[in-house]
Amino acid sequence: MNSTDVQQFYARHMQLLDGGEAEAWAGTFTPDATFAAPSMTEPVRGRDGIAAGARAAADGRTAAGEVHRHWVAMTTALNTADGIETVSCVQILAVPRGGAPRVHLSCVMRDRLVRQGGQLLVAERRITRDDRPGG
Amino acid sequence: MNSTDVQQFYARHMQLLDGGEAEAWAGTFTPDATFAAPSMTEPVRGRDGIAAGARAAADGRTAAGEVHRHWVAMTTALNTADGIETVSCVQILAVPRGGAPRVHLSCVMRDRLVRQGGQLLVAERRITRDDRPGG
Amino acid sequence: MNSTDVQQFYARHMQLLDGGEAEAWAGTFTPDATFAAPSMTEPVRGRDGIAAGARAAADGRTAAGEVHRHWVAMTTALNTADGIETVSCVQILAVPRGGAPRVHLSCVMRDRLVRQGGQLLVAERRITRDDRPGG
Repeated sequence: MNSTDVQQFYARHMQLLDGGEAEAWAGTFTPDATFAAPSMTEPVRGRDGIAAGARAAADGRTAAGEVHRHWVAMTTALNTADGIETVSCVQILAVPRGGAPRVHLSCVMRDRLVRQGGQLLVAERRITRDDRPGG
Repeated sequence: MNSTDVQQFYARHMQLLDGGEAEAWAGTFTPDATFAAPSMTEPVRGRDGIAAGARAAADGRTAAGEVHRHWVAMTTALNTADGIETVSCVQILAVPRGGAPRVHLSCVMRDRLVRQGGQLLVAERRITRDDRPGG
Repeated sequence: MNSTDVQQFYARHMQLLDGGEAEAWAGTFTPDATFAAPSMTEPVRGRDGIAAGARAAADGRTAAGEVHRHWVAMTTALNTADGIETVSCVQILAVPRGGAPRVHLSCVMRDRLVRQGGQLLVAERRITRDDRPGG
């Protein structure tokens, strides 16, 4: 494991998400990745569903006239037989056009990363929201 | 010195603090560590006092129904004869149950880290608050 | 390229800026560096102009009784023939004396870094503000 690799991965990963590049972002997950978040009634599996979610979120931001920035930090990374298990804090900054930024959400992101074809990819993601502890 | 080690240290260190694991958090300080912060009339010395402070803070957050996240970044690290001197920015996000996050505090954290038994530990910590310059 | 070097560079760079050390901060740019930001009618070139801008900003913060902290993160770094091209998110925390911190601005910072005399320096910087998309 190389922590620098992990950080570079998350930086590019979130630049794609916040830039509205939904398909490229979905490409940083494995083809059969699972993604579980409080906003979902059940986990999404696979790149098509992941891209659809990102596209819907990007459209919502555009409609609202907002830019979002996902900040990922405080990442611990543990090598396991199944990949790299990471735990990170995420803060989402929301910036309205012509207005002041606000911290929109604070979350914890638990990922299992794997290396395929020389690249890190998310195989499994679980998001919890700090405003919904235990939820 | 290895910056990646330092970052991983702070990530785990703050996950323990924000997770309310006061004794495990105190174990990331040396047995005779000193901790000075504006909220204290005098510096605390030793793990018992450090754990007691963390436990009281965790109880306060529980009573208030809040989650706190300590973000440590912008860390400079300098090797000296006495260890690794770090200077970091810290922002504390406070997240009420069902509410929006707020930036609760912005601080500067000056640490002296030492390596004991293959692990980094805090030997000395001094916190200053940005809302109390010079104070 | 070494990502850790880049992070250490930005940490020291922003500690100088936020500490009001305008001339030392300007010294972390190349002598003929260009700096373009939305607040400028045209880009600044050279250390004198860069230092003057930082000094004016520091004086403004002092007059307002505020501390600012520039947080740089989510940095991608790409080696090119002309140096290291970085893209980062920046958030500026503003902290009034005796008051609560606020996220003052969210920006994207695009730098070209070069190594001169063993040190990283900014040769070119372009800042965009997230509250002024496309502007």
